[in-house]
Amino acid sequence: MKIIKGGITTPLEFRAAGLHCGIKSSKKDLALVFSDKPAVTAGLFTTNQVKSAHVLLDLKKLRRKESQAIIVNSGNANACNGATGRDNALEMSEYTAKCLDIDKQNVLVASTGIIGKPLPMNKIKKGIKEISGKLTIDGSIDAAEAILTTDTTIKEIAVDTGIKGRTKNNIKIGAIAKGSGMIAPNMATLLSFITTDACIEYEELFTALRECVNTTFNMLSIDGDMSPNDTVIIMANGASRNKRIKFKTPEYKKFVDGLNYVCTYLTKKIAADGEGATKLVEVQIKGARNMKDARRAAKSVANSNLVKTALNGCDPNWGRILSSLGAARIKIKPGKIDIAINSEPIVHNSISTNFSQEKLHKILKEKEITITINLNVGDYSSTAYTCDMSEEYVKINAHYHT
Amino acid sequence: MKIIKGGITTPLEFRAAGLHCGIKSSKKDLALVFSDKPAVTAGLFTTNQVKSAHVLLDLKKLRRKESQAIIVNSGNANACNGATGRDNALEMSEYTAKCLDIDKQNVLVASTGIIGKPLPMNKIKKGIKEISGKLTIDGSIDAAEAILTTDTTIKEIAVDTGIKGRTKNNIKIGAIAKGSGMIAPNMATLLSFITTDACIEYEELFTALRECVNTTFNMLSIDGDMSPNDTVIIMANGASRNKRIKFKTPEYKKFVDGLNYVCTYLTKKIAADGEGATKLVEVQIKGARNMKDARRAAKSVANSNLVKTALNGCDPNWGRILSSLGAARIKIKPGKIDIAINSEPIVHNSISTNFSQEKLHKILKEKEITITINLNVGDYSSTAYTCDMSEEYVKINAHYHT
Repeated sequence: MKIIKGGITTPLEFRAAGLHCGIKSSKKDLALVFSDKPAVTAGLFTTNQVKSAHVLLDLKKLRRKESQAIIVNSGNANACNGATGRDNALEMSEYTAKCLDIDKQNVLVASTGIIGKPLPMNKIKKGIKEISGKLTIDGSIDAAEAILTTDTTIKEIAVDTGIKGRTKNNIKIGAIAKGSGMIAPNMATLLSFITTDACIEYEELFTALRECVNTTFNMLSIDGDMSPNDTVIIMANGASRNKRIKFKTPEYKKFVDGLNYVCTYLTKKIAADGEGATKLVEVQIKGARNMKDARRAAKSVANSNLVKTALNGCDPNWGRILSSLGAARIKIKPGKIDIAINSEPIVHNSISTNFSQEKLHKILKEKEITITINLNVGDYSSTAYTCDMSEEYVKINAHYHT
Repeated sequence: MKIIKGGITTPLEFRAAGLHCGIKSSKKDLALVFSDKPAVTAGLFTTNQVKSAHVLLDLKKLRRKESQAIIVNSGNANACNGATGRDNALEMSEYTAKCLDIDKQNVLVASTGIIGKPLPMNKIKKGIKEISGKLTIDGSIDAAEAILTTDTTIKEIAVDTGIKGRTKNNIKIGAIAKGSGMIAPNMATLLSFITTDACIEYEELFTALRECVNTTFNMLSIDGDMSPNDTVIIMANGASRNKRIKFKTPEYKKFVDGLNYVCTYLTKKIAADGEGATKLVEVQIKGARNMKDARRAAKSVANSNLVKTALNGCDPNWGRILSSLGAARIKIKPGKIDIAINSEPIVHNSISTNFSQEKLHKILKEKEITITINLNVGDYSSTAYTCDMSEEYVKINAHYHT
């Protein structure tokens, strides 16, 4: 596997576009992802019981395990809009199909932004008409820009999986994503669209996606605490004409490795770009009694406002880390926990190692912080991704709506 | 029941004191609560697996269901200090007993403040010696001040239960508390000390306390997500010489009413004084399928950073309320939720009522906000207490330690 320049239009026979249609005041707010032919498609969506209209629609459409296009708007989540919202999502999908002249079953929809306001359908339909004529093989970056909300940077990536196709090229995977919000605690919408020219059937594709999302995007957010809009969709159009990728083959392993790299990269990018974030924080749990405990412990620390504000202030307040572990409803030995920050041991057997405060304070100023915690009660490991919590986070979220 | 001026020294035969012993730079940091004779005593403590040394000590001592004094320090939590911490808590207790010349089994200890630093025992012992000579029947306010950390106001209350004693006075309940931290999400230490001159046995006292704490202090904090130090202790010294209060009597009901008022009052005071808080927020859930769901729903909304930041900005972003309910892992009908803010209906059947934005914005500027949510799936109700989340909250917590 190697990382290559590009995004969702890097795999063969994908095109994309992004433009401003008027939902936001001036920034791009409409994106289209398109495969030249129908693609095997798998999706994973929010577990929030309050689901946006697009999620309800896509869940239904994806029973067919196929799609050819995804129309995405930012600036309005089309969530909590009742029947009007559902009608509008359907109309976005059908109107896009009409403009692209493809099967209306094959258009998925995604929305992100403010909850509870009706979509401005006139603007959106005008935008859909325009964007359908603008699809290009260089369009990934425009699409990546058009799906952002309070993100400060676009997020795109492409990898060469090293799996040979029947064309002269190896199979590629490309992706774009948007995150922002303070991801970890709750409700920030995560959207990610992934494309690949691999020839792979639904079962393998879905399994690979679920496996990768589980240790990446899902470790950005506490259990169940997701936005009504969270969406990860992967389209595989088979344009590489490779021998179909099947379970338990070296090719499947390579495919998962590539996909995993893509998801991990985007997860870290999203964490580092959390609202008001000044640093990327990885919480690595080791020595947990089982996988569930490892994940819970990692998320408990990653979701602690007190840990996150301390990191923002470069404050070596390790007691807050221990305290958040103690509150995580997992099996621990309260006197047997070891903690290191960027490899500097600061707690052994749950008490201070008498580390150098000065050295640690310097470490805490770095842009990437890894908190490594050994619970010393078992052999399971897990990693959660988050960012620090700044005054800027509150400022952004106190006035998001108005 | 009526509210009267006073605090923990208002019930008969209780004395208290508070002074500065040097843990903090200049503010009071040592408090002593004392009953002239041994009192029936019940306590409720943090469910965090990481427990401070004082909690471990008090849990052991309270097997005897009796105490006569509580020595409290602020500025240092004496948590995560291993064997040294346990030795120091014990020494605080035994040295206080010596200075007061009472049974060493009868002195409880409480600590609050920074985690993971050893107590400065020389200063504390000097302080204990001094404070033991300063107990007065007007000392409640000094004690209330000495237990604070980042709180901005002292919290004390007294009530006349209306239950007659054999003295000329009715039975009284008095209390002091400290909270602060942004209570709801995690780890802020809550300490409350309650006194009463009622004659009541342990079983009734403990049951009454548990019942009241369950709907008040425990609704300030998400399940299990408590600080290593959280402590509520009630001492009943029987100085009213009333006929013993027993279950299923009018007196027991009156006692619970009084205690419940005390706990509710302090809970609201603590919420309104959350770090950086500009308003008190009550989240009232109605129509839940069962009590567990009602409590979970209330806490899910009360703990949402996005709801709390929106309230700080007076932003009528009701979608965040719906979204936090959807993420609460309770039974809801996503299309059947009603929401009102200070009695103004803003959401009916999960969609906007087209309320006046202007009017709501004005309501949101009030100092007390009640969010009333009807889930419309059952008959259970519950209320959670919290505050808004401000930039000031982050500022306080980013530099608490340094």
